[in-house]
Amino acid sequence: MFQIRTDLAVETRELYKENKKQEIPGVEVEKSEENNIEITRVKVVDDRGSQLMGKPKGSYITVEARGLKSADADLKDDVSKVMAKELVKLIPRKKNFSTLVVGLGNWDVTPDALGPEVISKILVTRHLFKMYKKTEDPTMVSVSAITPGVMGTTGIETKDIIKGIVEKSKPDLVIAIDALASRKMERVSTTIQISTTGISPGSGIGNLRKQLNEETLGVPVIAIGVPTVVDAATMANDTISMVVEALKSHSEKGSGFFKLLEAMKDDEKYSLIKEVLEPYGANVIVTTKEIDKIITDISQIIANGINIALHPGIDLKDVNRYLH
Amino acid sequence: MFQIRTDLAVETRELYKENKKQEIPGVEVEKSEENNIEITRVKVVDDRGSQLMGKPKGSYITVEARGLKSADADLKDDVSKVMAKELVKLIPRKKNFSTLVVGLGNWDVTPDALGPEVISKILVTRHLFKMYKKTEDPTMVSVSAITPGVMGTTGIETKDIIKGIVEKSKPDLVIAIDALASRKMERVSTTIQISTTGISPGSGIGNLRKQLNEETLGVPVIAIGVPTVVDAATMANDTISMVVEALKSHSEKGSGFFKLLEAMKDDEKYSLIKEVLEPYGANVIVTTKEIDKIITDISQIIANGINIALHPGIDLKDVNRYLH
Amino acid sequence: MFQIRTDLAVETRELYKENKKQEIPGVEVEKSEENNIEITRVKVVDDRGSQLMGKPKGSYITVEARGLKSADADLKDDVSKVMAKELVKLIPRKKNFSTLVVGLGNWDVTPDALGPEVISKILVTRHLFKMYKKTEDPTMVSVSAITPGVMGTTGIETKDIIKGIVEKSKPDLVIAIDALASRKMERVSTTIQISTTGISPGSGIGNLRKQLNEETLGVPVIAIGVPTVVDAATMANDTISMVVEALKSHSEKGSGFFKLLEAMKDDEKYSLIKEVLEPYGANVIVTTKEIDKIITDISQIIANGINIALHPGIDLKDVNRYLH
Amino acid sequence: MFQIRTDLAVETRELYKENKKQEIPGVEVEKSEENNIEITRVKVVDDRGSQLMGKPKGSYITVEARGLKSADADLKDDVSKVMAKELVKLIPRKKNFSTLVVGLGNWDVTPDALGPEVISKILVTRHLFKMYKKTEDPTMVSVSAITPGVMGTTGIETKDIIKGIVEKSKPDLVIAIDALASRKMERVSTTIQISTTGISPGSGIGNLRKQLNEETLGVPVIAIGVPTVVDAATMANDTISMVVEALKSHSEKGSGFFKLLEAMKDDEKYSLIKEVLEPYGANVIVTTKEIDKIITDISQIIANGINIALHPGIDLKDVNRYLH
Repeated sequence: MFQIRTDLAVETRELYKENKKQEIPGVEVEKSEENNIEITRVKVVDDRGSQLMGKPKGSYITVEARGLKSADADLKDDVSKVMAKELVKLIPRKKNFSTLVVGLGNWDVTPDALGPEVISKILVTRHLFKMYKKTEDPTMVSVSAITPGVMGTTGIETKDIIKGIVEKSKPDLVIAIDALASRKMERVSTTIQISTTGISPGSGIGNLRKQLNEETLGVPVIAIGVPTVVDAATMANDTISMVVEALKSHSEKGSGFFKLLEAMKDDEKYSLIKEVLEPYGANVIVTTKEIDKIITDISQIIANGINIALHPGIDLKDVNRYLH
Repeated sequence: MFQIRTDLAVETRELYKENKKQEIPGVEVEKSEENNIEITRVKVVDDRGSQLMGKPKGSYITVEARGLKSADADLKDDVSKVMAKELVKLIPRKKNFSTLVVGLGNWDVTPDALGPEVISKILVTRHLFKMYKKTEDPTMVSVSAITPGVMGTTGIETKDIIKGIVEKSKPDLVIAIDALASRKMERVSTTIQISTTGISPGSGIGNLRKQLNEETLGVPVIAIGVPTVVDAATMANDTISMVVEALKSHSEKGSGFFKLLEAMKDDEKYSLIKEVLEPYGANVIVTTKEIDKIITDISQIIANGINIALHPGIDLKDVNRYLH
Repeated sequence: MFQIRTDLAVETRELYKENKKQEIPGVEVEKSEENNIEITRVKVVDDRGSQLMGKPKGSYITVEARGLKSADADLKDDVSKVMAKELVKLIPRKKNFSTLVVGLGNWDVTPDALGPEVISKILVTRHLFKMYKKTEDPTMVSVSAITPGVMGTTGIETKDIIKGIVEKSKPDLVIAIDALASRKMERVSTTIQISTTGISPGSGIGNLRKQLNEETLGVPVIAIGVPTVVDAATMANDTISMVVEALKSHSEKGSGFFKLLEAMKDDEKYSLIKEVLEPYGANVIVTTKEIDKIITDISQIIANGINIALHPGIDLKDVNRYLH
Repeated sequence: MFQIRTDLAVETRELYKENKKQEIPGVEVEKSEENNIEITRVKVVDDRGSQLMGKPKGSYITVEARGLKSADADLKDDVSKVMAKELVKLIPRKKNFSTLVVGLGNWDVTPDALGPEVISKILVTRHLFKMYKKTEDPTMVSVSAITPGVMGTTGIETKDIIKGIVEKSKPDLVIAIDALASRKMERVSTTIQISTTGISPGSGIGNLRKQLNEETLGVPVIAIGVPTVVDAATMANDTISMVVEALKSHSEKGSGFFKLLEAMKDDEKYSLIKEVLEPYGANVIVTTKEIDKIITDISQIIANGINIALHPGIDLKDVNRYLH
């Protein structure tokens, strides 16, 4: 059966509600808002919810700010702050805490370069702690960062690379950043998803890779994702639904025509979508012309959020300026 | 009325033939093929053809090689050679001939960076001729190259920048390279259009700019374009047509339903497309994940073609290797 | 006679004072300091000063802050502010004022990429004024920006490219940014020179190009330069002087040995320097491993300075963040 | 005692011969030449040789071609071929052989970016073998590739990152590429050193890192290095020696003056050098303005050499063209 491709928990839930006209059982949803930033906390509490969502149990926090499309510097800072506040709740506060930040994705594929871009803006300190034989510092904690590349360029499972580095550098936490696919264009670059469940196969823009989570890596994994593309199939699907709706509106209820449209099965839709996309070949993505600039901006927002969440003595004023 | 966006003369003609089931009056078409490379020469001979094509009178040569998607180095060389052969026919052979190669587009927007990428691989010699006070050389001709940027980053009409440089450097010919939009994904990165009519407004991926042609620049302009994206509206349009066809096949001819589908006007389609794309916002493009790599490869093919077409003493073996 | 290569007026003056033990006639010098930023205003007032300085008559303002080597964000902002204050004094305040910012240098040669880097951070508005048919705005003025490349990559005199663009876009002022050579490593990346006399041949890191000034371009030219390299010859010269001094200290005054060292002529020095550098070939530069990062930082400082100096409604808070 | 910084075995030997006027005991040297490419095989056979060379026992093969400075594509291919021939001798031929290529260095520091640049041109196949569950292929062997970054950007010892990846991906061989420091500018970009002893601390342009060799990684390590910079201290030292020689020539043998120069101790020289460089601060390098282009070219030569040495079915014609 055709599945609309989305990596966002909020969208999986939306889809379910649209079809079933009810909240997903086994899933708790809580919304809040502060200065034009919407925060949605989706919590998958039991196996049923997990199965219906097609996502592991755990928390999925979505920070959304439509305004991000425009270049309002203050809003961008606010998003970093809100994001940091959510992160802090998820980061265990313990002595000598050390974090490994992982930038997933391929820096040679613009919409997939989000992870590496964020890494280039992360304040790395682990080597300084080693050099000065320190374990504690009032303003900083130990942070390391890596861009493992993608299997297509390394020939090695990304999970294996990270696992190897984790075993050697022994962090207490892994924060993994990746580009996601959304079902709606307006979410591209305006939405940040933070989850405690690691990163599932098929994340990023299509590069399958083994799961990165506490089970596989041996340390807690916080995944931060931002949609940078929409799946072409999603756009085709939206189009088809609209045509069907439009035609329905042309015919009175109960007519055979109307019934036929009503009866249009998902699998018919799916075969249509395949037909539409076939000539486009694999790897088709729908994105925006501004994607290069968007990646730069949003990676700054996320790096800022991570930097101020991890380091007690660092604030936005510091990171905003010369940490590029 | 809704117009499918295409910068390729071959596609405008295809569209006309699909609708009108006949060749466009005032347009001559000639096809040839050599080792898996299709060459189509579309010649707009009179005003009627020009008006029906929505393109100025002149020659539009399309070099197509589906195989380019794969990394066959030999085919790539063959395309450069075929392209060079076509270029040579268009370049006036005169003494002290000098060419200015212009790389249109924005190097910060991957699908629009084709022009600048090509320029970085062009063999520039004009300054050497000046330095050594030469006007003739058995192996090389005078070539200069410029990447004017786009109005969004310079604040100046690209045409004005080129015009100013042409007046100072006085070339005999301008070759302008730009990224185009195709109506079919399979043409992205597999098709090169060479035209003698300059570059029309709306070329590139949507950045309107004043025309670059013999009239505005005062010297002949050869435009070389490669589709790097498909217009999102085009994809939506393809989808809609397929749905309509699919529904038609479900209903017997002559039924009211069938008639309604038959009767579906272009403007209805158009409003549907607008409805589909509206949530996607402006600047939506359909492209491939490999676009970054594709730009690198195809820009090498084009630069090679230009370099061997212009310089009598340079062959592929030379340019292939260390002119990156 | 051997000339130590420096593009900085303050250094030419230093050298003169070191040798002649007096201020250069025809040159006025004024120093001031605010929070760890040294400002030196060298004014070449008559032909004699001009000839002794080897620089045209006019003002040379040097903004120096050794602290820039460290990453103190506040100091960086202060430098931008001081720089802006000096610029404002040099920019004529008139109605419908429009400025063209030119980034000289080669973006493929790191120490020479300062100009292009600055341009990528300049707030460009000219096209918006055209689009909305405005001539006045309370917060912004008309600004255009261009990176003409270098003769080696364009084949055209940079001066001719700028001249052509100036004639078409008719700015009231040109601000040209370029990388300079210093005589002292500690000035690399810590010193900004602003001058009203345009840019003289031999600026940048050795690429000769015709002068850019009011005479050649027809509009006032403000040149902003930052040393990014030290000439290898300078380092050799420093070394030689030190050896000679060291040997002198080993021998008592008046001894033949001492006299011989005293007598050591500049031209002997020069032939020694040539001997030292010969095996190193042309194009040798002395720079720092951090040069890539330094270019990024200092280009931000300069772009910020220009942006807040030109646009009445823009302040550091705006430009600091998302204008990269 | 002052040590001239060099990572090249041939230079350590040169220095020894210059001072001691004899070959280093415990070191075997063999020279050969084919079409303008000089090959020097330095073999450190015993502990004494190792101690005098300050390098571990093993083979150091140097491939030198002064012509590389010019852009002769044929010579470049010849160097790749010669390099490949030498590599093949060092690579054990066994079934299911798999190699991990490591690109050391920092891609944000141009002269240190050689390693990462080479990696971007390596033909990676390991994942294909996994995907198709193959262990043998007539044309290709299993190759993976990684750019671990530098400790300053990752916060983790590079050796630990590699070690972790080696343990997970289990290659039979590691080939590590790094930028080196030479004592002579003419060797920058014209010399390739291949050694079987891994990479010693202080390689690269000054970034200390733990050794990468068979002992630390558990698999054989072939190190490939290219000088991209000259140590500033080396240049200062050359200068001083020349001044001293020049002054000697001015004075007749036996004079007190001459004796004093003769007597000039290395440690005096050293303190002079420190005096010279002190104002230049740390991290001073002497390099060429063309370094960016040189890194691109030489990384292609090396990647070509590795690709054709590893894969039985790949030749220069294939890699030369579209493997960028």
